[in-house]
Amino acid sequence: MYDTLIQNALILTCNPAGEVVPAGWLGVRSATIAALGRMPAPAGAAQVIDAGGGILMPGLVNTHTHLPMTLFRGLADDLPLERWLREHIFPAEAAVLNPATARSGALLACVEMLLSGTTTCADGYFLEDAVAGAVEAAGLRAVLGQGVIDHPAPGVPDPAGNLAVARRFCRAWLGRCPRIRPSVFCHSPLTCSPETLAGAKRICREFGLLFQVHAAETRAEVERIRAAHGTTPVGLLDAAGLLDERTLLVHAVWLDEADIARIAARGARVSHCPESNMKLASGIAPVARLRAAGVPVGLGTDGAASNNDLDLFPAMDFAAKLHKVAGCDPTVLPAEAVLRMATIEGARAIGLEDEIGSLEPGKQADLVLLDARTPRLTPMHRPASAVVYAACGADVRTVLVAGRVVVRDRTALTVDVNSAMDDVARIAAGMRARGIT
Amino acid sequence: MYDTLIQNALILTCNPAGEVVPAGWLGVRSATIAALGRMPAPAGAAQVIDAGGGILMPGLVNTHTHLPMTLFRGLADDLPLERWLREHIFPAEAAVLNPATARSGALLACVEMLLSGTTTCADGYFLEDAVAGAVEAAGLRAVLGQGVIDHPAPGVPDPAGNLAVARRFCRAWLGRCPRIRPSVFCHSPLTCSPETLAGAKRICREFGLLFQVHAAETRAEVERIRAAHGTTPVGLLDAAGLLDERTLLVHAVWLDEADIARIAARGARVSHCPESNMKLASGIAPVARLRAAGVPVGLGTDGAASNNDLDLFPAMDFAAKLHKVAGCDPTVLPAEAVLRMATIEGARAIGLEDEIGSLEPGKQADLVLLDARTPRLTPMHRPASAVVYAACGADVRTVLVAGRVVVRDRTALTVDVNSAMDDVARIAAGMRARGIT
Repeated sequence: MYDTLIQNALILTCNPAGEVVPAGWLGVRSATIAALGRMPAPAGAAQVIDAGGGILMPGLVNTHTHLPMTLFRGLADDLPLERWLREHIFPAEAAVLNPATARSGALLACVEMLLSGTTTCADGYFLEDAVAGAVEAAGLRAVLGQGVIDHPAPGVPDPAGNLAVARRFCRAWLGRCPRIRPSVFCHSPLTCSPETLAGAKRICREFGLLFQVHAAETRAEVERIRAAHGTTPVGLLDAAGLLDERTLLVHAVWLDEADIARIAARGARVSHCPESNMKLASGIAPVARLRAAGVPVGLGTDGAASNNDLDLFPAMDFAAKLHKVAGCDPTVLPAEAVLRMATIEGARAIGLEDEIGSLEPGKQADLVLLDARTPRLTPMHRPASAVVYAACGADVRTVLVAGRVVVRDRTALTVDVNSAMDDVARIAAGMRARGIT
Repeated sequence: MYDTLIQNALILTCNPAGEVVPAGWLGVRSATIAALGRMPAPAGAAQVIDAGGGILMPGLVNTHTHLPMTLFRGLADDLPLERWLREHIFPAEAAVLNPATARSGALLACVEMLLSGTTTCADGYFLEDAVAGAVEAAGLRAVLGQGVIDHPAPGVPDPAGNLAVARRFCRAWLGRCPRIRPSVFCHSPLTCSPETLAGAKRICREFGLLFQVHAAETRAEVERIRAAHGTTPVGLLDAAGLLDERTLLVHAVWLDEADIARIAARGARVSHCPESNMKLASGIAPVARLRAAGVPVGLGTDGAASNNDLDLFPAMDFAAKLHKVAGCDPTVLPAEAVLRMATIEGARAIGLEDEIGSLEPGKQADLVLLDARTPRLTPMHRPASAVVYAACGADVRTVLVAGRVVVRDRTALTVDVNSAMDDVARIAAGMRARGIT
């Protein structure tokens, strides 16, 4: 009757009503959720997973990553953003990145995400073809954006060809793997000209894809855009007609009221990366006001060089707490709202809300099972609180993507974790040997 | 030659020079660190633990807990502090707490802390005799403060007797267990009269003990103290002569420059609880300014009802990131400084810096061994960054307190974890059955 049945689970559906099933089951047929209900479970499934009272929830959706940057995790922390980028990250990228190292970094990122309950990410980086190969092998779901910047970049030595590379990537990955959607990722309105931004969005519109762009991340960016163009980064994007339901504004920290109104009016979406914004001292995004304006806001970790992990459990904890203290109001972003940001709202932010983000029949079977039998999750007066404020990625026991078990009892089944770690450690040792720090 | 020898470890000593030994060994004799050095390790130890390249660091010091409050973890989140306390926590405490439930809650807290690498805590709560019993059984090190408040409290039905109870507790636990120091914990300058505060400090001075007090946690507290006494909470404590090297001010969020100068001049110490301050929207403590003034600042989780875990790894991550974004400066509180706050500075905050907080010969062998063989800690360009920004409590493999292995390969040896969880889950189920939510 079902290919896989998960039983004895506390189910957080994240459906529109936010239903919680205290003791339930969920049946998977092929890649999708066929049914779910209260115990007792129906008999006759090919494979039964007993949750033992653990939490069954939608796979988490990480709306902003740079997967290969695991190579640079901890390379140069606690520095100003511009120095960090220009003196450390850009030179390291130029020296180290090629399709093989990008794949190694991305593969480690994929296994880190799967082991901590993330089943989908929206990525933006260079050499995205290599990233896609890693994502395909790891069994993750992803929106993968080929990076576009008006400088020489890894895999794109001549910036005049950056849009052609992006277009080629999108064509190559359209329909190639059911779990992968190509996309274009513009580095920022500072590092991409208005023509480049418009050309990137044109490619996305041609193929019906997500357009991703860092925007309004730092105060310096806003000041420089204003000096050059007489408007804000969001104003610039809007005036060029680049904001719509398939535009994901990443960071969106420095917004004025007009920016929020523009984003809401166009139906654009936001990726909020609290840990990166805090660590780089970029600022505090107006998440409560964006949500009040009806803007879908998802959560992201950002790359491993600016976080320094790819675990969405701490990202939930940070988001929930940051906006409370920023707003001087402990009722801001309650646990249930943050859980939705990491699941269904994140799916909406990247345009996948019809397929993933909640446990509802007909949706893809992207599932995470948490082991609740641990001191930090005991007692469990309120499950959403437990997930947001107390759980960590290490509590994830079993993960399914599109109905396939990719992590079972904390062991990744799709990637050889030891060899993924060894590869990246070897690349990092080579960096140190060459004085790249 | 050594009772226990740990070898093949990346050692973060947290000694005055902040030395790191990339591949080292550490020998324990009886309860203390006898020696440490670079590999190869000497032969002849009774017990050898191979770290396999993992990180060996001092046991973490949690400078503020309310151990039995694991019973109330997630009971009532996302509420204003006063409503949370008066409508949920105080009634739940009154209905649920007795020596047996307090011990159960504290025992679960102890095992959660040990499993996540905390070897010492400074606690303040009621029924502290029961808490001390749990700490003794679990093998943790602690400064345990009997709670004092001018209301009826668990175990102290008549507040007229609160100081007598505290004095009795201190006498009972002085010298009783080498890992436990008694202390007195005043709830706050709002809930304790100046006479009560002075009486509590008098007991501490009589026996040479730490005096703990919540102070300047919320803006409302400062306003009410100013209205009643014409000064700030810190000003009030100082005018009463209660600030000295053995006073731990917990939270210290709302301080003016005069308060910081007073704290520094008296040599008083601060416990900083970033996650609790954020979740309850209390505010952002001026940690960078306190540190610049020379005040020892330790890290705390606060109780499990306001965090909601007792893991100091996320507390480090939160502290490092919060003060960067608050100060608009990514160089504030670099990883190395935060690691010290969670170890040697925390020890200094609670008066134990001569015994614990760093890996130096002659100090107590309170040790934490992290498993670095995990995706989130790979690669490791900079160990302190890995610990602060990427590690989590679940990466802790083995823990020693006073030379005794209390956690081995992620298994607690001193506490039956399942029965500790069952006890607390049963108490929580009883609360729900009685409508206490």
